[in-house]
Amino acid sequence: MSRSPGRKQENHKISRELFVLTYGALVAQLCKDYEKDEDVNIYLDRMGYGIGVRLIDDFLARSAVKKCRSYSETADMIAQVAFKMYLGVTPSVSCRSAAGNEFSLILDKNPLVDFVEELPAERPSLCYCNLLCGVIRGALEMVHLAAEVTFLQDRLKGDAVTEIGITFLRKPEDRKQKK
Amino acid sequence: MSRSPGRKQENHKISRELFVLTYGALVAQLCKDYEKDEDVNIYLDRMGYGIGVRLIDDFLARSAVKKCRSYSETADMIAQVAFKMYLGVTPSVSCRSAAGNEFSLILDKNPLVDFVEELPAERPSLCYCNLLCGVIRGALEMVHLAAEVTFLQDRLKGDAVTEIGITFLRKPEDRKQKK
Repeated sequence: MSRSPGRKQENHKISRELFVLTYGALVAQLCKDYEKDEDVNIYLDRMGYGIGVRLIDDFLARSAVKKCRSYSETADMIAQVAFKMYLGVTPSVSCRSAAGNEFSLILDKNPLVDFVEELPAERPSLCYCNLLCGVIRGALEMVHLAAEVTFLQDRLKGDAVTEIGITFLRKPEDRKQKK
Repeated sequence: MSRSPGRKQENHKISRELFVLTYGALVAQLCKDYEKDEDVNIYLDRMGYGIGVRLIDDFLARSAVKKCRSYSETADMIAQVAFKMYLGVTPSVSCRSAAGNEFSLILDKNPLVDFVEELPAERPSLCYCNLLCGVIRGALEMVHLAAEVTFLQDRLKGDAVTEIGITFLRKPEDRKQKK
C-alpha cells in the first residue's frame, strides 16, 4: 500500500510562513520566560548570535562570495546576497557616517512579521526581530568583523520603515597598521 | 548615499538553514524550561498546533486544493502538497490499517535536523521535531478532521527512517450519518 512519489532534486528553500510562525512561537516562549522586554531582546540577540556563527559557513559555501574590501561592500553583501538568500528580501543600504563604518539596512517589508499586527501593549520595548541583529553580529564576527547591530526603527513600533543599524567597530586599516 | 536595489517580485520562500537553526534554538529553549522530555514534547506539539491552526488558511489559499474525499487522499495531500510547499520535501505515504484511517508519512531525510547530529544523552525521549505533529494536527482540525499525530520512528533515535503516524479519529461517513 506504499506510494512513493517521484523524487525531485532537493532544494534549500522552504515556505516563509512556517518559519514566521515558528519564530513567533519562539518569541512568545521567551516572553513567557522573561518578564522584562530588555531581557527578551538580549536573549533573542544571543540566540541569533549562535545562529550567525553557524550560518556563516553555509553562507560562504553557497554564495561563493569573495572577500569584501570595505565596510560598504560588506554592508551591500549582507543586504543583497545574505538577506536575499535567507529571507527572500533585499533591504536598501545607506551609509550613516562620514567615517564610513555605520550603515543602515532599510526594510520596506519585514518578512518576519507577516503574521504580527502590532506588539502586545504590555511589551512596548520588545525588539521582536532582534534575532536578526544577533545573526548578523555572529556571522560578521566569524569573518573577523566586530560590529554592533541594533534596530534603529521598527514598523511594529509605528515607524515608517524597519531599519537595522550596523556599526563596524574597527576599521580593516586599523588592524593592518597594528601588524 | 542610498543605494536601492532593483525590486524583484517577492516570493514566499526562505532558506531552510535559517529556519532549521531557529527551530533548534526554540527546542533548546524549551529544554532549558522543562526538565522532562515528555513536557518538551507536549509543549512542542502544542506550539505546533497553534501554528497549524493559522497555517491552514495559507495552505488552502496557496494550494487551491479541492476537498479531499477520503483519508487516503488527505494523507497524500499532506505529503505531496503540504510538506513539499512548507518544507521542500515529499514523504512517501503508506496506509497502516485495514480500516483505512491510519497512515504513515515516511521521511528518508528530515529537513528539520540538518544541523543535528544526535540527541543529547540526557534527552533520550525527546521528540525533537514534535512541532510538526502539532502543525498537522492543528491544520487537520481546522478542516474538521480530528487526528492523532505522533512520531513512530525517528532517525535521531537510531531508526532507519523518520516516520510520522497519522490516525484519523472519525470517519467522514460517521459524521454524515449523525446529521
